[in-house]
Amino acid sequence: MKQINASIITIGDELLIGQTIDTNSAWMAQELNKIGVWVKRKLAIGDHKEDIRKALDEESRQADIILITGGLGPTADDITKPLLCEYFGGRLVVNEDVLAHVKYLFEKVYRRTGPMLERNLKQAEVPDNCTVLMNKRGTAPGMWFTQSSETGEKKIFISLPGVPHEMKGLMTDEVLPRLKQHFQMPVIFHSTVVTYGIGESRLAEEIKDWEENLPAHMKLAYLPHYGMVRLRLTATGEDESLLRDQLSRQMSKLKQLVKRWMVTEGDSTIAQTVSALFKKRKLSLATAESCTGGYIAHLLTTDAGASDFFKGTVVAYANEVKQNLLGVSEETIKNFGAVSEQTVKEMVKGVLVHLNTDYALATSGIMGPGGGSDEKPVGMVWIALGNRQQVITKEFHFRFERLRNIEMAALTALNELRKFVEGDKS
Amino acid sequence: MKQINASIITIGDELLIGQTIDTNSAWMAQELNKIGVWVKRKLAIGDHKEDIRKALDEESRQADIILITGGLGPTADDITKPLLCEYFGGRLVVNEDVLAHVKYLFEKVYRRTGPMLERNLKQAEVPDNCTVLMNKRGTAPGMWFTQSSETGEKKIFISLPGVPHEMKGLMTDEVLPRLKQHFQMPVIFHSTVVTYGIGESRLAEEIKDWEENLPAHMKLAYLPHYGMVRLRLTATGEDESLLRDQLSRQMSKLKQLVKRWMVTEGDSTIAQTVSALFKKRKLSLATAESCTGGYIAHLLTTDAGASDFFKGTVVAYANEVKQNLLGVSEETIKNFGAVSEQTVKEMVKGVLVHLNTDYALATSGIMGPGGGSDEKPVGMVWIALGNRQQVITKEFHFRFERLRNIEMAALTALNELRKFVEGDKS
Repeated sequence: MKQINASIITIGDELLIGQTIDTNSAWMAQELNKIGVWVKRKLAIGDHKEDIRKALDEESRQADIILITGGLGPTADDITKPLLCEYFGGRLVVNEDVLAHVKYLFEKVYRRTGPMLERNLKQAEVPDNCTVLMNKRGTAPGMWFTQSSETGEKKIFISLPGVPHEMKGLMTDEVLPRLKQHFQMPVIFHSTVVTYGIGESRLAEEIKDWEENLPAHMKLAYLPHYGMVRLRLTATGEDESLLRDQLSRQMSKLKQLVKRWMVTEGDSTIAQTVSALFKKRKLSLATAESCTGGYIAHLLTTDAGASDFFKGTVVAYANEVKQNLLGVSEETIKNFGAVSEQTVKEMVKGVLVHLNTDYALATSGIMGPGGGSDEKPVGMVWIALGNRQQVITKEFHFRFERLRNIEMAALTALNELRKFVEGDKS
Repeated sequence: MKQINASIITIGDELLIGQTIDTNSAWMAQELNKIGVWVKRKLAIGDHKEDIRKALDEESRQADIILITGGLGPTADDITKPLLCEYFGGRLVVNEDVLAHVKYLFEKVYRRTGPMLERNLKQAEVPDNCTVLMNKRGTAPGMWFTQSSETGEKKIFISLPGVPHEMKGLMTDEVLPRLKQHFQMPVIFHSTVVTYGIGESRLAEEIKDWEENLPAHMKLAYLPHYGMVRLRLTATGEDESLLRDQLSRQMSKLKQLVKRWMVTEGDSTIAQTVSALFKKRKLSLATAESCTGGYIAHLLTTDAGASDFFKGTVVAYANEVKQNLLGVSEETIKNFGAVSEQTVKEMVKGVLVHLNTDYALATSGIMGPGGGSDEKPVGMVWIALGNRQQVITKEFHFRFERLRNIEMAALTALNELRKFVEGDKS
């Protein structure tokens, strides 16, 4: 079976001046992968006719499906849509369904942001040679073009708005179902384990023999991410049940090899792993955060259902909050400092009492860039965690810029909590 | 003066399967812009020789500088470096400085992650026809190649590791200073205002006359971001003081036109604007977060210096935490619910007393996907804020997925606080 390749073109000067980070194309790639489409290239270009035309020419030589996002907003200087229309040899006509939808949105939903303008109405104009994809979440419709290439192959071009939740709605409701209908796709399965505390190179050595003996249709990716390394095994083929079976057998071997460093199976984050653990065991958790400033709480509440186990957090940035809300003694802070083993230990004990939970976790550290000393350098973090029977403390040193130190401290703290609750108190 | 164009090529299958979001290229684009280089294209490709070779051919036709990140890690299957070596007609030789540096890192810094391996030593091999850029933060060095194009122009190719903090170190220490020396750059200035509460289309109408009359060397970009629209005016030219003057005159006009919706000047976030306001007026702040789950605290503590005004937060996810730590009455929660005007009001009052601050902010809402009802639908958020003299409350409705609802609620709450403290209580 032929591998179906896609290319994603993102249009917009905001991507090229670095003011917007492109999260759209990563999401699109994941969704395309799931249905068996491989993304071969991603290209970002500005709002310029010549650049867009050249990109359409180039990408259609390399891929079967060309997905285009952005360039369709009401202030986008009307470049992309007329250009697509011209490129595919059509002309712009008003689509009555889109027009009715734009009017509806302005009458019912957008009342607060102001009246409908001429430029909003123009969003109902679409090329007469495309299939219109209705955008339930916004005014700019998606467009689906089919064209024969020089070699006679049918190429599909799909234009979508760049606003992430509009793009996602259109992909889910329109694009993915239509692509599945249009192509005969190979079956692709991914399986992931997440490791912590071992470098990429050493991991590669540990699993070298296994990796070298993988069958040709299976491929391993190393995906380093904040001190963790994700190992993602991908199997491509045609027979679904055979593939599932092969993948699960190889994954068992891999898990055995990396057992010592394995955080979780599947593609979950450390926060999701901790959540699942607490929910399964019907335990409750609260935290006290100083240096992580609420980021652990944010990670735990990003997914729905946190209220099943998570009671809350005291972000104790000022020392008086550590004292008044958590009962840390003034003496301790005076004698050992806010960033100390003694203080985080008292913070954990305070959480257990005042927020009344089975487990508690606390952080205090120096995230930089200022505030460090020889004795307590930037990047030094104390973590304490435990339950009513036992509280343990650990010291860590991170070497990054402030935001990354915050992220590393939060993920490390959650991983230490996971190990403790799982009974591995090493 | 000729505009210097760059193209950024990112190499790595992890970008194409959507498991990694590329934040490198946005940062690079910002830094290149500051020295006067315009990023014309960004291309992401996989770890495949043919794709990399094709990308080098294509991009060198379009840009003066070709920046390549990724593909240099110790498990990257050794594709990129040998390919670059071959592409530019060199051969791999051991660089003694890099070798000493790799050995030093393994002896002094990486002791915990395991011993040095053969594949780490290979990182000291570099093409003999490149300038080696020393990577203080990691083992993979940067490489700088110069080549003449078909038309006789000198093109510069720069290969950097994909690990963000290593790439950033190399850009700052090596690449940007060398580029500034190598090219005569135009002067580029950007100036930004951030607006809130007005749609992109309506904003465009409000400033239409002004925008149409901008001189040719000045360009306005609309950058929508979470309910805000950033307006970024860019001036390009040669005379620095003339440009500064022109930009500042145009910005005064623009600020006058968008006064009603302006949040801040400059390229700061709402959290940074609130921080600056509290620091300037020497006021203190603490918050109580239910639905935003610590995200407001995280935004306020992302930048250094938060301890000057920010005392802390109670993330009151469970009702008992609202009662025990903030003194919200059981009656109020029973009669009106946790998501209610009455509850957020009592949360704010609790913060003012128990965390002892000049100002307080509180949020409670239903972030979804579950938990909504006809009376209190998903996306409904109550915000309260104030000081000892006055507490105000506001109700908002967001229509997004969970994480975006959390982000919108946090930014909206911070913006309402800003308006209140600035004395604009509308």
